[in-house]
Amino acid sequence: MFRPEIKVIDCSVRDGGLMNKWQFDDNFVRKTYTALTEAGVDYMEIGYLSSESAFSRDEVGPWKFCAEADIRRIIGNSEKKIKLSAMADIGRIDYDDIPLKSESSLDMIRVACYAHQVDAAIELAHHCMDKGYETTINLMAVSTVVQRELDEALDDLSKSRVPIVYVVDSFGAFYSEDIDLLAKKYMDRLPGKTIGIHCHNNQQLAFANTITAIIDGINYLDASLYGIGRGAGNCPLELLISFLKNPKFRVRPLIEAIETVILPWQEKIDWGYYIPYMVAGALNQHPRAAMAHMESGRKNFITEFFDQATSAAELD
Amino acid sequence: MFRPEIKVIDCSVRDGGLMNKWQFDDNFVRKTYTALTEAGVDYMEIGYLSSESAFSRDEVGPWKFCAEADIRRIIGNSEKKIKLSAMADIGRIDYDDIPLKSESSLDMIRVACYAHQVDAAIELAHHCMDKGYETTINLMAVSTVVQRELDEALDDLSKSRVPIVYVVDSFGAFYSEDIDLLAKKYMDRLPGKTIGIHCHNNQQLAFANTITAIIDGINYLDASLYGIGRGAGNCPLELLISFLKNPKFRVRPLIEAIETVILPWQEKIDWGYYIPYMVAGALNQHPRAAMAHMESGRKNFITEFFDQATSAAELD
Repeated sequence: MFRPEIKVIDCSVRDGGLMNKWQFDDNFVRKTYTALTEAGVDYMEIGYLSSESAFSRDEVGPWKFCAEADIRRIIGNSEKKIKLSAMADIGRIDYDDIPLKSESSLDMIRVACYAHQVDAAIELAHHCMDKGYETTINLMAVSTVVQRELDEALDDLSKSRVPIVYVVDSFGAFYSEDIDLLAKKYMDRLPGKTIGIHCHNNQQLAFANTITAIIDGINYLDASLYGIGRGAGNCPLELLISFLKNPKFRVRPLIEAIETVILPWQEKIDWGYYIPYMVAGALNQHPRAAMAHMESGRKNFITEFFDQATSAAELD
Repeated sequence: MFRPEIKVIDCSVRDGGLMNKWQFDDNFVRKTYTALTEAGVDYMEIGYLSSESAFSRDEVGPWKFCAEADIRRIIGNSEKKIKLSAMADIGRIDYDDIPLKSESSLDMIRVACYAHQVDAAIELAHHCMDKGYETTINLMAVSTVVQRELDEALDDLSKSRVPIVYVVDSFGAFYSEDIDLLAKKYMDRLPGKTIGIHCHNNQQLAFANTITAIIDGINYLDASLYGIGRGAGNCPLELLISFLKNPKFRVRPLIEAIETVILPWQEKIDWGYYIPYMVAGALNQHPRAAMAHMESGRKNFITEFFDQATSAAELD
């Protein structure tokens, strides 16, 4: 599928960092940056943009902040051939802590929000645009938002200047038919805007749902190396790049990066297809309980988790 | 998706056995049998039907043969509430070694063949039907068959008495659009017959492609516990049962079986999403080179495998 409007955004460091508090060393981030550049990936999301006052550097690594000095240490002084993105959470970044684009190596700031936060998200995104950045709004967890609330949020977004809006399947709960329906809804309610997709792989559907999104006309595609990301992880970038027929893309640098920096992390953190994540996705639940179970020392006691999750669902 | 015509066939022992020469102990097979029964799965494919003269019991376990005495030891004397299936490969089973249905605990024999073997497969399938069995023909590796040859094979099958014909993505190479096209072709060329689907998970699309097949009207669905099967494995049964909305199905017994008998095998054999399998699938290659690489002691040297596989593809 070759369509020049398609842009691929790698989220390895940003979403993967949700599993290790962004404790990736410089070698990891630099290797990822180099590999993505060589593979022709359009954007690297290098972390979150947070105020230093919001978190302690004793607890989280540098990619929770994306300070310019840290980014500079990674990318060096040679010409940057991939765009850099950072994600901003509402309430975790003071406007004054966002540098002007002319003073930053970042190209894009993506504002993540829940549907009820959409007004605050638009204000923050407009601020970022006024400082010179490309921006998107990533509307999280739409699988749990009632139709009226989602429609209202989309109508607010349609009146904004924000050019790109994401469908985010935070809980890995969607089937391809859901993607079809949401893609159509977003396009109908957001005329003239570009739509993006960010999937989680709880039901092994992140790649398939991304393909569905492409067929539906969605053009901003999130993925990560070997799917590294929260819980079951994201759409595997190597699969997506292999599928896209744009000749600018190359798979080999991604395979090499997986070998050298991703596989070692797989021995330390458990993203990917595990039954607790699958159960959370099938039940359309936040992954936090599944992640706690995976870290409890009882991760293979999956029937116990199933019983807890299904009785929680009945009580909801 | 509730459609009464849908039948689910578990292939855990049969396809999983390709990874360990069917060396599952009786506890594994009995637990699988019990769990599938409790989950409401329609068929359990318990192994291959082979003549004792074709393989040595010193090298392969009992489920390469599916002798009646072995099956009896598993299922005991209580009422059988799930149908049992065995797969027959052309040339590995003498007709005389196939018991009459009245003398067997098997309900169905599925004949696996390549397109060029379809006449021999039809003859064997007719023989099985005449002995009283349900039968299917599973046309393997159709991702490598040229259109004319596939059309001829389907036309031969349309003239046969065999009621069920499978689309088999042996190499895990298909995207959903391929499934759409093949489902339509099989239905057009095989009027009155039931179509089945058997996917491999090289590109994390086995479940997604099975959903696509359901939407396309395919009614016989293969899957296995936690996807256990050759190479990247099959469509995970727990995902499929969770997706199907037929109230007769239950997910919990499958989770419990995965916990007690599948997870221990995961420490010994490498099915699932690994880069060598992904590369083989993306290149539409037989998984044997990827499996050899995984067993070579160099399984994490994935760039080396990528280079070998892509240069082999260029020479093809």
